[in-house]
Amino acid sequence: MKIFERAVRFDEVDAAGIVYFARVVGYCHEAMEAFFDGLDGGYAALIVERRIGLPAVKLEAEFHAPLRYGDRIRIETRVTRLGTKSADLLYRVHERGTEPPCAVLRHTVVTTDLASLRSCDMPSDVRALLEAHLDRG
Amino acid sequence: MKIFERAVRFDEVDAAGIVYFARVVGYCHEAMEAFFDGLDGGYAALIVERRIGLPAVKLEAEFHAPLRYGDRIRIETRVTRLGTKSADLLYRVHERGTEPPCAVLRHTVVTTDLASLRSCDMPSDVRALLEAHLDRG
Amino acid sequence: MKIFERAVRFDEVDAAGIVYFARVVGYCHEAMEAFFDGLDGGYAALIVERRIGLPAVKLEAEFHAPLRYGDRIRIETRVTRLGTKSADLLYRVHERGTEPPCAVLRHTVVTTDLASLRSCDMPSDVRALLEAHLDRG
Amino acid sequence: MKIFERAVRFDEVDAAGIVYFARVVGYCHEAMEAFFDGLDGGYAALIVERRIGLPAVKLEAEFHAPLRYGDRIRIETRVTRLGTKSADLLYRVHERGTEPPCAVLRHTVVTTDLASLRSCDMPSDVRALLEAHLDRG
Repeated sequence: MKIFERAVRFDEVDAAGIVYFARVVGYCHEAMEAFFDGLDGGYAALIVERRIGLPAVKLEAEFHAPLRYGDRIRIETRVTRLGTKSADLLYRVHERGTEPPCAVLRHTVVTTDLASLRSCDMPSDVRALLEAHLDRG
Repeated sequence: MKIFERAVRFDEVDAAGIVYFARVVGYCHEAMEAFFDGLDGGYAALIVERRIGLPAVKLEAEFHAPLRYGDRIRIETRVTRLGTKSADLLYRVHERGTEPPCAVLRHTVVTTDLASLRSCDMPSDVRALLEAHLDRG
Repeated sequence: MKIFERAVRFDEVDAAGIVYFARVVGYCHEAMEAFFDGLDGGYAALIVERRIGLPAVKLEAEFHAPLRYGDRIRIETRVTRLGTKSADLLYRVHERGTEPPCAVLRHTVVTTDLASLRSCDMPSDVRALLEAHLDRG
Repeated sequence: MKIFERAVRFDEVDAAGIVYFARVVGYCHEAMEAFFDGLDGGYAALIVERRIGLPAVKLEAEFHAPLRYGDRIRIETRVTRLGTKSADLLYRVHERGTEPPCAVLRHTVVTTDLASLRSCDMPSDVRALLEAHLDRG
């Protein structure tokens, strides 16, 4: 499990005064980027230099409670499945440490060659990092 | 079924050169806003004047093909279930008219009083509009 | 002069309930993209295929009145100076047709080779389009 | 002078592979939010509870060098003028500690009652914080 935290920003609430679902999905992508800080050069080097990415092929999300401006988000990221080319990530989005989570997202990503946009073998360092946070429970 | 179309903008691609999944979710919210143009004053009057919104409680999405800068998105929005307070929307996201869709999203929304952030009865005009586009198939 | 119009979206207001200045700047970039629809393949072909862009080097903006959710933006884009590699664009951002404008932006762009990120000669079709909308007044 | 730092995110580059100017403006607003962390409850409490904001009335910006995915932004925020209701902020946007700055922005804000959207007196804690970082040079 890896933890990512940041505040909801001024420009991130919607006309209803809360954070709309697409932005919560974006927060989870930020948590994924932070997860891959464990790679040499982080996610940026994987994308820009090695031209390998992890686009989403599937997403399942439940939203339980609203997030507002000034809230402090805490996202717990876990790897729940590790395949040969793909993996499942689970994000629990909390407002500070409060339970239950505001949102729970399940995200399937596929290792992809960004030149051809076709799936490719998972690099060994990516696999090792995912494996280190594997939590099938 | 209601159709929403627009181009992928310059600032909407990511470091991999494609549109990342959170933004595709945002496109579907734009399609929902356009869907509610059928209300008097549109979605804006519902939110700002009547203080009623339709936050997401659930989202299921599959992403089949990438979208790039310059692509023209065409989203078909259907209502697949209509409850007393909630509804399910189905979005098929196409690049122009091409098949299969780049993404398919299923979105459950709940009629919500924005003052209390609690679920509330669905206004009759909202219900009538959803019903007019109901397609259980 | 070229006109660009669209509505302020649900997710584009801030925690103060209005559109913050960075987003108004973004709207003007959208107006610039629409301006370059006059090129063969639009701005997208210039960027993606010809790898030539027009990054900002200077921006001056005045904000006179707030924009809110549901407002309809109308941006008038003019070219006020045309140099060998650079040009000045002037945007007047109106809420519908109302006067005075909500914002006025002056934007200097430089023709740039996106491979080297150095300034380059302005392609003749880009120049012709800018010249057609030149309004030094 | 107050320092704000963060990385350029995956979804923050444009189709040219760099950070477009509207987003750099947004980064400076983030620096301003961080600047007001010095208030009790931060900028969020000022906006949400006290219903006072600081919308932009004027912006002048120069962009000297591009920012890319993976770059680490460092923004130095200074107050260069303090009026009765308004203030001028100066932001120097650096990639890490490198000189010269990638961008320099001058931003005039006006204390505003968010209920009426009219200018109002500057609260004493806002004034004290601005004064503490006043650097007319």
